[in-house]
Order: sequence, then C-alpha cells, then structure tokens
Amino acid sequence: MITKSKIKLIKSLARKKGRDQHQLFVVEGYKSIREFKDAGAFIIDLFTTQDAVYLNDLDPVVIAAADMKRISNLNTPPGYLAVVKFKEEPDIQEAQLILALDQLQDPGNLGTIIRLADWFNIDAIVCDHNTVDLYNPKCVQASMGSLARVNVISVDLEDFLEQASQPVFLTAMNGDSIYNTSLPEKAIIVMGSESHGVREKLFATGTSISIPQYGAASSATESLNVSSAAAITLAEWKRSTTGKKN
Amino acid sequence: MITKSKIKLIKSLARKKGRDQHQLFVVEGYKSIREFKDAGAFIIDLFTTQDAVYLNDLDPVVIAAADMKRISNLNTPPGYLAVVKFKEEPDIQEAQLILALDQLQDPGNLGTIIRLADWFNIDAIVCDHNTVDLYNPKCVQASMGSLARVNVISVDLEDFLEQASQPVFLTAMNGDSIYNTSLPEKAIIVMGSESHGVREKLFATGTSISIPQYGAASSATESLNVSSAAAITLAEWKRSTTGKKN
Repeated sequence: MITKSKIKLIKSLARKKGRDQHQLFVVEGYKSIREFKDAGAFIIDLFTTQDAVYLNDLDPVVIAAADMKRISNLNTPPGYLAVVKFKEEPDIQEAQLILALDQLQDPGNLGTIIRLADWFNIDAIVCDHNTVDLYNPKCVQASMGSLARVNVISVDLEDFLEQASQPVFLTAMNGDSIYNTSLPEKAIIVMGSESHGVREKLFATGTSISIPQYGAASSATESLNVSSAAAITLAEWKRSTTGKKN
Repeated sequence: MITKSKIKLIKSLARKKGRDQHQLFVVEGYKSIREFKDAGAFIIDLFTTQDAVYLNDLDPVVIAAADMKRISNLNTPPGYLAVVKFKEEPDIQEAQLILALDQLQDPGNLGTIIRLADWFNIDAIVCDHNTVDLYNPKCVQASMGSLARVNVISVDLEDFLEQASQPVFLTAMNGDSIYNTSLPEKAIIVMGSESHGVREKLFATGTSISIPQYGAASSATESLNVSSAAAITLAEWKRSTTGKKN
C-alpha cells in the first residue's frame, strides 16, 4: 500500500525543486538500490511490485504495478524504487586526483562520468554550481550505483581552481596532446560543457591538454562527447601514473 | 507549407518499420544536416521554421513551428529537419581496423560510438543484425553527423568473425589488459551489448582483452558503459599503433 500523499511526495522528487526541498531523491532498479544500501545510503522508503524477486531482505512495501508506474521516472519501471536521503557533502581535503566538471548540462553524461570516476578510483568530482543536478533521475540511473560511492561536491569552479594546491589541466580542442604531457598523480582535470567546452576564463588557472584526433581533421567530427573524452583522459592518467600497468 | 501526407510519412520514420519501408530517415539540427550534406547524403526534403537562420543555401521549405513540433522526434525541436535517403552499404573489403558491435541495444550508445569511430578514423563498424537500428533518431542525433562519414554495415557477426582475415580481439571482464597486449594495426575489436557483453560463443574467434580497473574491485563499479569502453579501447589502439603519438 502506498498513500496518495506519498505518491505526491515521490512525484515531486522528479524535479530539482522537490529534491532540494525534501533532501531526498529516487533510485530505481534492484542493483542500483543494493549498491546504495551497501554504500551506507539512508533508504527512507522501498517499494517493489508483486513480481519483484530481489531485495526482500530490505523489507520492501509491495505496491500495485499501476502505482509503481505513477511514481517511476522510467517508461518501463524495473519494479524496484527507493527514496533515498541526500548524501552529506564529503570532505575532499585529502583528495589527490580530482575531476572538475564545468557546467555540464546532460544528466546522462554526468552519471556516466560518475561511473567512470568509480572505475578509475578518482578521489573526488567537483562540479561547478551551474552543472546539472547530481540527483536528476537520469544521472542517478546512468551512474549505475557509482553515485553511492564517488565523492561529489558542488563549488564555484573558478574560485576552486584558483585556490587549488594541485596543478590544473584543462581539456581543450587545441591543447598539448595528453600523450606528450607529463601527467602527475596529484592533479585537477577539468572537462567542459557539451556545447561550450571549458569556459575561456578558467584556462588561466592551468595547462591545456587535448586528445589527439586521427585522420583528416577537415572531414572528421569536430569533437568528442564529454563522457568519451573523460573516459580516455582518466584511462590515460591512470595508465601513465600507475607503475603496475603497462 | 507541408502536406498532411508528408507529415504522416515523416512521422512513420520514427519507427524502424517505416524507415525500412521508405529507405529514409530523419536528421535534425543544422550542424548535423550540414554534415550529411557535405558527406554527399541525398536530402529528399528540408524543413525549417521561420526563425531558422542557417541552411538557406539548401533552399528549405519554411513551415510553422506547430508543424515542426509534429514531425520532430525531439522535445525541443531545433527548427531544422531533413529527410535523408539511406546510405548504400559501403564496401569494407579494404578495411584494416574494424570495430564490431555485438547486439548493442541503446541507440545513444551506438551514435556515440559512431562519433568515436569518426574521431579515431576507424575504417568500418560492423554491427550484428540484432544491434539497434542505425537510423534510430537517437542514434542519428548522438552521432552528431559522424554517421554521414563512417562506414557501417550489418552482418551475422559470428559468420563475419569466423571468416575474417584480421586477428580478432574481444572485450571482456577478465581478459588480458589492453596495456599488456600487442595491438596490431589490422584488427577487429569486438564490443558487447550493454547488459550481456560479448556473446560467449564468439570468444572462440580471438583473444580476450580488458580495460584495467583501479581501486578496490569489491567496492567499485562492475563495468564501464559500452561507449566509455569503446572510447578507451580505440584511443589506446591508436596511441600504440601510431608512431607519431608518444
């Protein structure tokens, strides 16, 4: 059973305003919910449908498929929906390798990048205040549970970079090749928004780097998707700073 | 002006059945349309709204915003929509480096990978017949015009790999590190579907390779998004086979 007021509350979490007001967000799918649980997330409510076979140990409330459809953000609800409390902002004082995101707008890209940061064991992600909301359902979904583990904070990125003790590397179209740049273990890597890249004024804070393009530049694509660029940059960073690999 | 029958035709192109029947697909946004045009695509119809300021040299038909909304696949129509003829299947006999996709289901991933193949100058993409449709609007959109330039064919992947002259490398969770594998210029790189990876039976055709994971495996994400994995693998392939870069 789910009350009307609870349905209303959960539906309000589809928007940033509702999430900020209640300090709650929605996670769907049993794997993601399990990962949030394992990472110590505070689950306020857990709903499943009658045919759901996992997560019984978490004592879910079984609801009708029609009700699940009402509260789900997905066209095909997976049958598992949790209402989760916002994480406390982590302390990133000790972080060595930081990925900074300058005003990314696509929640799917943000989620994919959080998953990448988890895979590559990046100490923290720092988002400019004008980056898409971390708890946007599409971001939560694309992070596949990695959001539960990765440290993410929101900052004024210009101030943050100016005060940082690590060297700053900003991805650009015309920077030095990442393969010709010495990549230190302690660093801040800055990726820009989908349409505008890193804001011009931030380049004063560090070194520009680029991923080489191959083939005839005139006939090829202008740029990489920001999550593709993040994947390549983080992989190369770890390859070149980790003695064990290659 | 746009006729009712034309609206109906274009709406039918939102589905694979309609696209296959008419051998037509839809491209939206002036940049993508320009790239298709520049790559020699056959544009059957071009529609813009009154406030559209680009592509006037292509003699567009100006239609009302309400009509554009009807024919667009996007929530916020960019104001430029072209109906384009299917490309002829390219001849890939001479292709050296091929990316093979085994039953990918997400059109956004396919489009992102086509954009990557363009950036890294991959000779051809080979899709198993059960891969999501190339002309799915979300794939066309995510490819950002690269679909106009990259050679893509559809095959029975098992047959294709068995008959290939190039060595085959299949991405897996437990393969050899790509950094410890000798990566030849002539090769077929196989990436698997989002939920199941490369099908088990295909592994007999070549060598398994993996992208190393960092940090405590027990506490980290299980896998990378397929387009993230493609980005890292293609970048590493080009880095290690191209003398010019590091």
